[in-house]
Amino acid sequence: MKLATLRDGSRDGQLLVVSRDLRHACHAGDIAPTMQAAIENWEQAAPQLRRVYDRLNEGQISSVIVFDPHAVAAPFPRAYQFIDASAFLNHGNIMERAYNLTVKKDKNIPILIQRQGDDFYGPHDDYPFPSEADNADFEGEIAVVLDDVPQGTQAADALGHVKLLMLFNDMSMRTHLFRELGMGFGFILAKPATVFGPVAVTADELGDAWADGRIHLDLQVHRNGEWFGNPNGREMDFSFADIIAHISYNRKLGAGTVIGTGTFSNKNYQEVGSACLAERRAIETIANGEAKTPFLRYGETLRFEMLDASGQSVFGAIDHRMVQA
Amino acid sequence: MKLATLRDGSRDGQLLVVSRDLRHACHAGDIAPTMQAAIENWEQAAPQLRRVYDRLNEGQISSVIVFDPHAVAAPFPRAYQFIDASAFLNHGNIMERAYNLTVKKDKNIPILIQRQGDDFYGPHDDYPFPSEADNADFEGEIAVVLDDVPQGTQAADALGHVKLLMLFNDMSMRTHLFRELGMGFGFILAKPATVFGPVAVTADELGDAWADGRIHLDLQVHRNGEWFGNPNGREMDFSFADIIAHISYNRKLGAGTVIGTGTFSNKNYQEVGSACLAERRAIETIANGEAKTPFLRYGETLRFEMLDASGQSVFGAIDHRMVQA
Repeated sequence: MKLATLRDGSRDGQLLVVSRDLRHACHAGDIAPTMQAAIENWEQAAPQLRRVYDRLNEGQISSVIVFDPHAVAAPFPRAYQFIDASAFLNHGNIMERAYNLTVKKDKNIPILIQRQGDDFYGPHDDYPFPSEADNADFEGEIAVVLDDVPQGTQAADALGHVKLLMLFNDMSMRTHLFRELGMGFGFILAKPATVFGPVAVTADELGDAWADGRIHLDLQVHRNGEWFGNPNGREMDFSFADIIAHISYNRKLGAGTVIGTGTFSNKNYQEVGSACLAERRAIETIANGEAKTPFLRYGETLRFEMLDASGQSVFGAIDHRMVQA
Repeated sequence: MKLATLRDGSRDGQLLVVSRDLRHACHAGDIAPTMQAAIENWEQAAPQLRRVYDRLNEGQISSVIVFDPHAVAAPFPRAYQFIDASAFLNHGNIMERAYNLTVKKDKNIPILIQRQGDDFYGPHDDYPFPSEADNADFEGEIAVVLDDVPQGTQAADALGHVKLLMLFNDMSMRTHLFRELGMGFGFILAKPATVFGPVAVTADELGDAWADGRIHLDLQVHRNGEWFGNPNGREMDFSFADIIAHISYNRKLGAGTVIGTGTFSNKNYQEVGSACLAERRAIETIANGEAKTPFLRYGETLRFEMLDASGQSVFGAIDHRMVQA
């Protein structure tokens, strides 16, 4: 099923059930007032939401509204826990080769970045940042949302906690990223607010494309209306099962925890392109000794979308514009 | 005023107003159901809570309960945004000297660590971790809690957003810390759940000891009932004004954001001791070539407390025990 959060002026908005074709929606506040309330009470809420979803898809609900992706916030407008992985090692390998970096990695330990969850942007919100000199960049990613995960959860049990998936653009400020990476304590100015697609979906919406704790679909990325890349999720070097098990070694994860893939990146990047500017610039640097693709300027637009096997948009699109803060 | 969160089986508990002497409390659910609700609506809630607090201290409230610090959760059982600083450079300097580390620092940029907020422990909760080989350590710290902070807030305006202060123990797993520091992406296994003192207090409770965006009081640390250290907060190299301004350069901070000082650390550590094991071990290593103070074992207890000028406990005490997960 597909769920969204209608803006209503409150911090957490109102829960909507959205039809599979993303054309219609209906209010689900009688089941759970917000997305966070739904995930905290998923065992009770999910079957009820699914009945509404089925009836909505069958055209049996009279009080439908037109689904307007401009009227929604991020599915979770805020979250108590957000960790982003960097699970496509191909991306890191390209970056290290271009810039002669040596990241001390362990092939059994995923790179994970603790992130803030208090301010997630909706799919069509203008994205404000204070200076073009910050070298603004995007990263096309997918996230999972978990119910309560006990401390010590093993990989074999981890995927049972994945209740929803979301599309997101992990905006990154590269000027600050290299400095903060060198300090070693993680990212602050390098990773401001994150931008999410219109709907969160249950894994069954992906059919066979959700397998081995990975999303086997292309992530379509466009910059100013032009194709930028469409890497596939199947090349994740660490599955979500691996990632969840690693994190929960010595912490429990609260319901509504968001965990991201890291920027999509494929070995055949010559054909499928990239999902972030930094990677394309690194590829240019390796090939030609310098990067020619510029970082983002005010007024530029970005679009991210993922289509299922039938061509249906899974999450709806992120389509947003960079603006002066 | 002093506020706490009574456990009631729900995720966010119930808001209590607590008397200055920490002996009595009364329910404040008619003003705000939870601490998070109070901070999101602080302008309306704070004057009402203060009236209750004043009457409670004057013995004018009939429906008082005995304040039991064993019955409370962390003041904020969870938070959407938690950043810990490392604002006492003395601590880092000792660590670097002992272990020949070179952290790429900029004297104008505070070290900041993005942290998770979905699972804060109460002051007397047993602390479970999976292995003594993780080299468990504590860090005695103070945190501020903010109301909504706009993007681009300047240092001159930052302290007006500080609404509450809290005492906390930033539990740290040193085996993982050195590895994760080397990777550069921040901490995951090195920094599991954080432990908070019984009450959150407004800055006026500190009197003159809240000055220049710093807490000019000693933080008393005991290990298994024995004195371990009592460093003072006045030596913070970055004030909370500096820290908040730095963070909000390109992000807004949601109401309920928690920002920590980093482990208290003073230049006269020979007299006042330390607030974490790693620092004492580093001092031993510098003096004798090796550390003799062991990391935490199961069954050990830790106590953290801060007294005001009159000898009154400001936040109540954290007093908890290490246990096998």
